[in-house]
Amino acid sequence: MSSAIKVFAPATVANVGPGFDILGLALEGIGDEIEMSLSDAGGIEIRMPGSNLPTDPKANVAGVAIQALLDELGSSQGIRMIIYKKVLPGSGLGSSASSAAGAVFAANELLNSPFSKQELVQFAMAGEAASSGKAHADNVAPSLLGGFTLVRSYEPLDVVNLSYPSDLTVVVVHPQIEVKTSDSKKILKKDISMETAIAQWGNVAGLISGLATSDYGLIGRSLQDVIVEPVRSMLIPGFDQLKQAAADKGALGCSISGSGPSVFALCNDPVSANKVGSIFRQIYQDLDIEHYVHVSKINEEGAKVLI
Amino acid sequence: MSSAIKVFAPATVANVGPGFDILGLALEGIGDEIEMSLSDAGGIEIRMPGSNLPTDPKANVAGVAIQALLDELGSSQGIRMIIYKKVLPGSGLGSSASSAAGAVFAANELLNSPFSKQELVQFAMAGEAASSGKAHADNVAPSLLGGFTLVRSYEPLDVVNLSYPSDLTVVVVHPQIEVKTSDSKKILKKDISMETAIAQWGNVAGLISGLATSDYGLIGRSLQDVIVEPVRSMLIPGFDQLKQAAADKGALGCSISGSGPSVFALCNDPVSANKVGSIFRQIYQDLDIEHYVHVSKINEEGAKVLI
Repeated sequence: MSSAIKVFAPATVANVGPGFDILGLALEGIGDEIEMSLSDAGGIEIRMPGSNLPTDPKANVAGVAIQALLDELGSSQGIRMIIYKKVLPGSGLGSSASSAAGAVFAANELLNSPFSKQELVQFAMAGEAASSGKAHADNVAPSLLGGFTLVRSYEPLDVVNLSYPSDLTVVVVHPQIEVKTSDSKKILKKDISMETAIAQWGNVAGLISGLATSDYGLIGRSLQDVIVEPVRSMLIPGFDQLKQAAADKGALGCSISGSGPSVFALCNDPVSANKVGSIFRQIYQDLDIEHYVHVSKINEEGAKVLI
Repeated sequence: MSSAIKVFAPATVANVGPGFDILGLALEGIGDEIEMSLSDAGGIEIRMPGSNLPTDPKANVAGVAIQALLDELGSSQGIRMIIYKKVLPGSGLGSSASSAAGAVFAANELLNSPFSKQELVQFAMAGEAASSGKAHADNVAPSLLGGFTLVRSYEPLDVVNLSYPSDLTVVVVHPQIEVKTSDSKKILKKDISMETAIAQWGNVAGLISGLATSDYGLIGRSLQDVIVEPVRSMLIPGFDQLKQAAADKGALGCSISGSGPSVFALCNDPVSANKVGSIFRQIYQDLDIEHYVHVSKINEEGAKVLI
């Protein structure tokens, strides 16, 4: 049992077009880093340099997630951690999920891996519930497992690693305005028409099939969200411009990352992805909005040990 | 240009669990047969021995479908056909789709194939619209193209051939009570809760992924329809018994074929499929309901020339 560890858990894009509440993918090169050690003092102690998020373990997603893991083990092991937030809260890139996933992954490693990564999803979800009021897995699953994930069901929890073409490249842009997940949930309707739902699951089916068979044309035609995007995109300045520009530059599709305000585009290679990234940057420069652009492949590994 | 032809167009299972209005598959060994010839007399002449369906071409799905094809060509070519109905109307096995698909396929062959099978889908849909009041493609697409098909979108029409494991075997049982498609549509709600819709598209995603990767466990877990089956199954005598028996005999899943009353089960090999077929037969014998059981692989070819 090593007594100290440093881990990385990637930022994630949830929903991914038509896959509201079920699909997510992990990003390379952006994610939270967590240093963790076991402590004889008992309790969970959290430090988050440069962040004003709560460090009380009962109010912190990482604290709540680790407590769920310890409860399952019937353990009162003390834990100390320092969370280096690299994924900005309220970005729509799975900030709280990245902390929750990294924390349970690190604790599991320090405790000699009593759980598989799949099993860790439920504990990270408990952390997410503390943040958003509902236990979602569409960000924590890809942050832990990497790749492109499907949360097929919650009762029982069933997380599936999807097949996808290895050249698939993701562009995300985060306009630095804050949209709280809870606000963003409120503007969604509780009921939808059967007709709209059918259109949505037609696109979900097309997307999964296109990913599994590397059919980029089908992926592109299927990256349509007819339910959530039309409502939430109103909260994102320049959204229509970004979407048009992504199409013009050859992206397969473009939609909202998680509950926004970040916007993602999927591309079939890094060259077109870089062009899309440049035009996204240009659009927010012209709108005079602070922004951050990230271009990467899908992270295949998920949460990992750094040192 | 040959002047006479005989074709076969398979019966089909539409919806296939969670895929309401978007998924369908073709059956081997059961379907309508159509003899067709070109005629100098002009007009469309239809005979249907042993059937009491309308033979007026304006009121017959095959007649309407062929007229749509001729209209697209700007042709006033006369057509004569004899339709041998093997798929019983009102069975939920795509009876009208089989006639419409076979008719446009045969006419296209006689006219030197101006259209691809994919292009024929739209004409067969026009026939379906005459039958059910709405132009659906989830039966005509698999009847024409064979295999397991996805109708991703109607505007524009986008039909996708899905990947599926070649051992997949289908059991269908048709209890010979009539449920009209139009009645069966009426009992569905126009709105559904977002929560239910999310559960449905999670299962759609799992099913497509399981089919593409031959993950039978995932196919089985995903063959759940939480929206339509709970309502329509009330119209099918013995449905709960069939479903339980299918699970007991090792079927991957079991649900309603099309709008019923036929029920299908998917199995991972012919041995378990035959066991499921036997128990289905037993259940309807015990209930004293006339029935027909069919066990087959998925038909890979779709509509084809017999002679």
